[in-house]
Amino acid sequence: MFLFYRRPVLKRDLLVCEEFFVAKRKVCVLGATGTVGQRFLSLLENHPWFEVVEITASERSAGRRYEEAANWILPGEVPEYVKKMEISPTNPEIVEGVDILFSALPSDVARKVEMKFASKGMVVSSNASANRMELDVPLVIPEVNPDHLSLIDIQKKKRDMDGFVVTNPNCTTIPLAMVLKPLNDVFGVAEVFVASMQAVSGAGLPGVASLNIFDNVIPWISGEEEKVEKETLKLLGKVGSEGAEPAGFKIATSCNRVPTIDGHLECVFVRLEREVNLSEVGKILRNFRGEPQDLKLPMAPENPIIVREEVDRPQTRMDRDAGKGMSVSVGRIRKGVDEKSIRLVLLGHNTIRGAAGAALLNAELVVAKSMV
Amino acid sequence: MFLFYRRPVLKRDLLVCEEFFVAKRKVCVLGATGTVGQRFLSLLENHPWFEVVEITASERSAGRRYEEAANWILPGEVPEYVKKMEISPTNPEIVEGVDILFSALPSDVARKVEMKFASKGMVVSSNASANRMELDVPLVIPEVNPDHLSLIDIQKKKRDMDGFVVTNPNCTTIPLAMVLKPLNDVFGVAEVFVASMQAVSGAGLPGVASLNIFDNVIPWISGEEEKVEKETLKLLGKVGSEGAEPAGFKIATSCNRVPTIDGHLECVFVRLEREVNLSEVGKILRNFRGEPQDLKLPMAPENPIIVREEVDRPQTRMDRDAGKGMSVSVGRIRKGVDEKSIRLVLLGHNTIRGAAGAALLNAELVVAKSMV
Amino acid sequence: MFLFYRRPVLKRDLLVCEEFFVAKRKVCVLGATGTVGQRFLSLLENHPWFEVVEITASERSAGRRYEEAANWILPGEVPEYVKKMEISPTNPEIVEGVDILFSALPSDVARKVEMKFASKGMVVSSNASANRMELDVPLVIPEVNPDHLSLIDIQKKKRDMDGFVVTNPNCTTIPLAMVLKPLNDVFGVAEVFVASMQAVSGAGLPGVASLNIFDNVIPWISGEEEKVEKETLKLLGKVGSEGAEPAGFKIATSCNRVPTIDGHLECVFVRLEREVNLSEVGKILRNFRGEPQDLKLPMAPENPIIVREEVDRPQTRMDRDAGKGMSVSVGRIRKGVDEKSIRLVLLGHNTIRGAAGAALLNAELVVAKSMV
Amino acid sequence: MFLFYRRPVLKRDLLVCEEFFVAKRKVCVLGATGTVGQRFLSLLENHPWFEVVEITASERSAGRRYEEAANWILPGEVPEYVKKMEISPTNPEIVEGVDILFSALPSDVARKVEMKFASKGMVVSSNASANRMELDVPLVIPEVNPDHLSLIDIQKKKRDMDGFVVTNPNCTTIPLAMVLKPLNDVFGVAEVFVASMQAVSGAGLPGVASLNIFDNVIPWISGEEEKVEKETLKLLGKVGSEGAEPAGFKIATSCNRVPTIDGHLECVFVRLEREVNLSEVGKILRNFRGEPQDLKLPMAPENPIIVREEVDRPQTRMDRDAGKGMSVSVGRIRKGVDEKSIRLVLLGHNTIRGAAGAALLNAELVVAKSMV
Repeated sequence: MFLFYRRPVLKRDLLVCEEFFVAKRKVCVLGATGTVGQRFLSLLENHPWFEVVEITASERSAGRRYEEAANWILPGEVPEYVKKMEISPTNPEIVEGVDILFSALPSDVARKVEMKFASKGMVVSSNASANRMELDVPLVIPEVNPDHLSLIDIQKKKRDMDGFVVTNPNCTTIPLAMVLKPLNDVFGVAEVFVASMQAVSGAGLPGVASLNIFDNVIPWISGEEEKVEKETLKLLGKVGSEGAEPAGFKIATSCNRVPTIDGHLECVFVRLEREVNLSEVGKILRNFRGEPQDLKLPMAPENPIIVREEVDRPQTRMDRDAGKGMSVSVGRIRKGVDEKSIRLVLLGHNTIRGAAGAALLNAELVVAKSMV
Repeated sequence: MFLFYRRPVLKRDLLVCEEFFVAKRKVCVLGATGTVGQRFLSLLENHPWFEVVEITASERSAGRRYEEAANWILPGEVPEYVKKMEISPTNPEIVEGVDILFSALPSDVARKVEMKFASKGMVVSSNASANRMELDVPLVIPEVNPDHLSLIDIQKKKRDMDGFVVTNPNCTTIPLAMVLKPLNDVFGVAEVFVASMQAVSGAGLPGVASLNIFDNVIPWISGEEEKVEKETLKLLGKVGSEGAEPAGFKIATSCNRVPTIDGHLECVFVRLEREVNLSEVGKILRNFRGEPQDLKLPMAPENPIIVREEVDRPQTRMDRDAGKGMSVSVGRIRKGVDEKSIRLVLLGHNTIRGAAGAALLNAELVVAKSMV
Repeated sequence: MFLFYRRPVLKRDLLVCEEFFVAKRKVCVLGATGTVGQRFLSLLENHPWFEVVEITASERSAGRRYEEAANWILPGEVPEYVKKMEISPTNPEIVEGVDILFSALPSDVARKVEMKFASKGMVVSSNASANRMELDVPLVIPEVNPDHLSLIDIQKKKRDMDGFVVTNPNCTTIPLAMVLKPLNDVFGVAEVFVASMQAVSGAGLPGVASLNIFDNVIPWISGEEEKVEKETLKLLGKVGSEGAEPAGFKIATSCNRVPTIDGHLECVFVRLEREVNLSEVGKILRNFRGEPQDLKLPMAPENPIIVREEVDRPQTRMDRDAGKGMSVSVGRIRKGVDEKSIRLVLLGHNTIRGAAGAALLNAELVVAKSMV
Repeated sequence: MFLFYRRPVLKRDLLVCEEFFVAKRKVCVLGATGTVGQRFLSLLENHPWFEVVEITASERSAGRRYEEAANWILPGEVPEYVKKMEISPTNPEIVEGVDILFSALPSDVARKVEMKFASKGMVVSSNASANRMELDVPLVIPEVNPDHLSLIDIQKKKRDMDGFVVTNPNCTTIPLAMVLKPLNDVFGVAEVFVASMQAVSGAGLPGVASLNIFDNVIPWISGEEEKVEKETLKLLGKVGSEGAEPAGFKIATSCNRVPTIDGHLECVFVRLEREVNLSEVGKILRNFRGEPQDLKLPMAPENPIIVREEVDRPQTRMDRDAGKGMSVSVGRIRKGVDEKSIRLVLLGHNTIRGAAGAALLNAELVVAKSMV
């Protein structure tokens, strides 16, 4: 249980690596039987900093062994460490002895319990949408807006809690915001149009009925477009004295479900505030780095953005696992309708970088910054 | 072979129906073994005005019976009338005794032979892209720009031919232009962004390898975006003294292949020249009619555009056969980024309205206007 | 409501067609919102003998309009006649004024209510499995064992009811038994091995989660193998004084779910009781006819079995709609392991011939025989 | 290039591991651009015993860099080591300085060149079907019939060659024979019926057109059934003085293409020569081991056969990668039609254990036995 690891620490702007002899953080996965819950358990197998000591699910599954209760849909088998683990009910009164909770809860359940867990002093790294747009809750992609973690102080004070809730965005928002961030920093983003082609794993389990999606495209996903638009503006906005303040550019999305298993592909049209050179765009995206790379967080990919030169990439099945599912692939960078506008295609793994991996990276950032 | 039919005729702006005792036009399908060729043969079974007397394909298939040479991919069987028909080579020297040729040829072959057929006095209604952008060749959707048929006189004179070539647009362009036409007439179109999700039948045979498209999205189709952009501007442009003159609005597309069999779905963002009211948009699209409806052409759908109110329609598998595959379905009409911009989703059947049905409707229009 | 139709009647072994001026039978679809319920409503649109006057579903849907309550998965739209119809609860106390009930109920519900409806004097033509294996309940395919309808007298007497329940077999059993019937009559069947490849529509709604079946084969369907084996033996067995008596041959099945929408394909190995000639087998299957063909029942296909000569047919998508989904397609008739054994591939449409169409044909047979 | 490795050696029936300081064997992949060729290159990346020094393909690709010529369909990218490698033509006159050739050639090409390569003293480990049924060519699965390598002496002598050709069976045969082997050893196999559900990667590139296989099952694969039946009998047969002698049991197969990417699933009905106990069958399969496990060959899986207890496994997508694609998964072991017959479902990865991995394992066995 105890182990050495090298923790990178920022000391007066210097990155220092120190070797520690420490315990892993004890973590719990809330909503462990769903598709995102399964990804959490899979990614947490042999995680260097975290040890799963508890898992929860709905009342229907509580008390059962994980391997019996879960409809496991990832290739291969339920990880050995969790097969026989007994599922607890998702109840803040019951869960004890845990440092960090990873929430893969449905939104309505998350709304009821996440703040209660935080009130008991625990840190909740949530993939649920329930608290994302709260003014005092940080909505974070570590490469994009790690400074938003400063909202935690506001949150704790305002709600009089020892713990806190940190959230990651929706699976479609994350790769989009990662690509818009460096473009906004350099050129200024004026207007964005996005059409997404989203995989069925994004809908969870039982999710999309095969009869509804075989040989079909469904051009609507409940609540998705609103989430992507609002969350993108919050992510690229600032932290004010009262809380998060959204960015001011225009954005319109059109979200589609397509018959793929994993991976959300997005066709993006961006109008910038000044004229751009396409090779400059490629260079800026390729060179984009953030704190996870500086801090060498365990889940951090070497390249947050991989720029592909082939005319027909990124492709969903071929590129979704890039950077172990934590990199965003970008391709087809080309002119839009005028000198100030561009088109590109981007792709992210929706249950890794877009969900469980996102929440893990947020938790790693919080640990590396000694906030838990 | 001889039969009565009611031919609608325009006389001094009055629509008159006359009953004729006439022969069916003798037609030939060029490139009859491919996916579009198969659609032609299927739609021409029992067509009231046309009788297939000849079919052609590549040298490899020439001399063989159709049922042996074709890899038939439409449900059910090869239509009885064509099963035993012998395939001719696609050679203007050989094909005789035909009034109208329907061209489902690959672009390079079309470029070589279509004008030669026209030189022999025949009418070519072509689905091939080869001649679409020629200044003196009409690129026509009968509901959108039937007036472009006036280019035929220019074409005949310039090329000194008795016959002529009329073309229909690309399968992605057609439903897009049909929806933009009434919007442009009423509001003026300023800027269009389109992301398409295109079925594999659009790539013909052997077309897309299953290994390349299962569980995948390919965000690129060779030459497609250029075609859609140029063709849309030509369709919504005017006929000048020298030939076709493109419309002046801005357009950018992003074309994707998705794992569906038939049906191209498009997410469209349109900026208009004045503020719009969404219910007005729906009404204008719903009420859109054109000459095919006035002339009651055999292939004409009652409603060129069907507006769906459900939040999640049109869907590829559910709506592609609307109007026997000749109607375009539109849904999710909603606000864009400001009062002058809208978003919508549209869907057309790519091998019916988007290909074989389009060329048939063009030929029917030409016949109804006594141009052949 | 009243109309002429030609009813074929058997009079002293002579088939006589009489023209009647009669009312359509009033029918109700039980479980109208599921996939089989949807097929019933679709096939009953403009049915010459039946008029839908009532539809039922679970308590959750009761009281709602059909178009709002159903997740319609057939291409196109909910038939106009049923769009606004109000859903009743599936309650024998409430449903009145109906001659025939078509049951698309889940098995557990069917077990509770079907006999109650029969007790009220109504005829239940059921696609549910609940009562299929009851000794006094006819399990019928009209081409295979119409004589089993004689069980109705036993049923009525034993249960003291005015109405009765007639059932059709499982979607995998039906095409199999239709092919085994003529083989058994001519050669005697000794042993049968079957591996099925079943479409997702067979699992109803929500049915198979897309995440579970994309790019996958699931080699197990709950209860399916037992049903297919027992039902096949009952169908090809006799009616004894106490009830149905099963046939005596051996049968083993292996049932698989594959990623197709509609159509169950089966690879069948049959050991016969005497040596066979393959062309004889083809001829026997091709010439197979039954009472539905003699009586010209509305749902009866001209050919119950279509034998295909192509080396690669039948195929699921290409052949499932043969005979409007009521014909079974057979191909690849070839030698087995010795002179007494053969192999073949068969295909039936699982929600038409295999479910709703089967129950309709049973009801038509019962009407034609003046049993209702 | 030079390295230590531990080579296991058999010395007077004792397994001894010796550490060597040796060069890797220089290998060439014949037919490197196809799907099996791609698997070879992927599995050979960092292989401890083999180093790819040359790759070949058809004339059309010869002279081009691999990354430009190949339509790479495996997830991720072309392995770095081969990206820039120039493709040679598949010509025995040209290829030099190679110890072992892995053949992923089409059958007609393999027939022409494989023996010529062997005549030049090279060892050909072939996945092509061309030479499999030659009496003097070993058709080998290392766990099943390593003793068949004794045919090599006959082959060399008869053909007067220094090199030789060793082949592996068809992708459907391999997992079937691996399961039949221990059953035959213990119980004696009398009769086998097999229905396969095969993935599209088995058809190579361009392979199965998406239009032909979406939402479809094709119940025929050219030549497949004959191959599976003959090869299975050769594998489980003996080596006589003249060459291979087939086993004597009866076998009939029915091979289907289904819409999956990788993984062949087979439903198997086996009649044995004596009564069996199902738990005994499970135990025998689970405990099956062969020379690759004893010799710890690099590609050898720990368990050649994995027996699954779940009612619905193995499943194509979930289990194809078991043992890195080298294990066969078996499940649903159940009674057949009587006490001497059983049913089971088995699954193997068709391009790993069923093709490239099979040829690699054969080559490893040949090296471990010092035959090259």
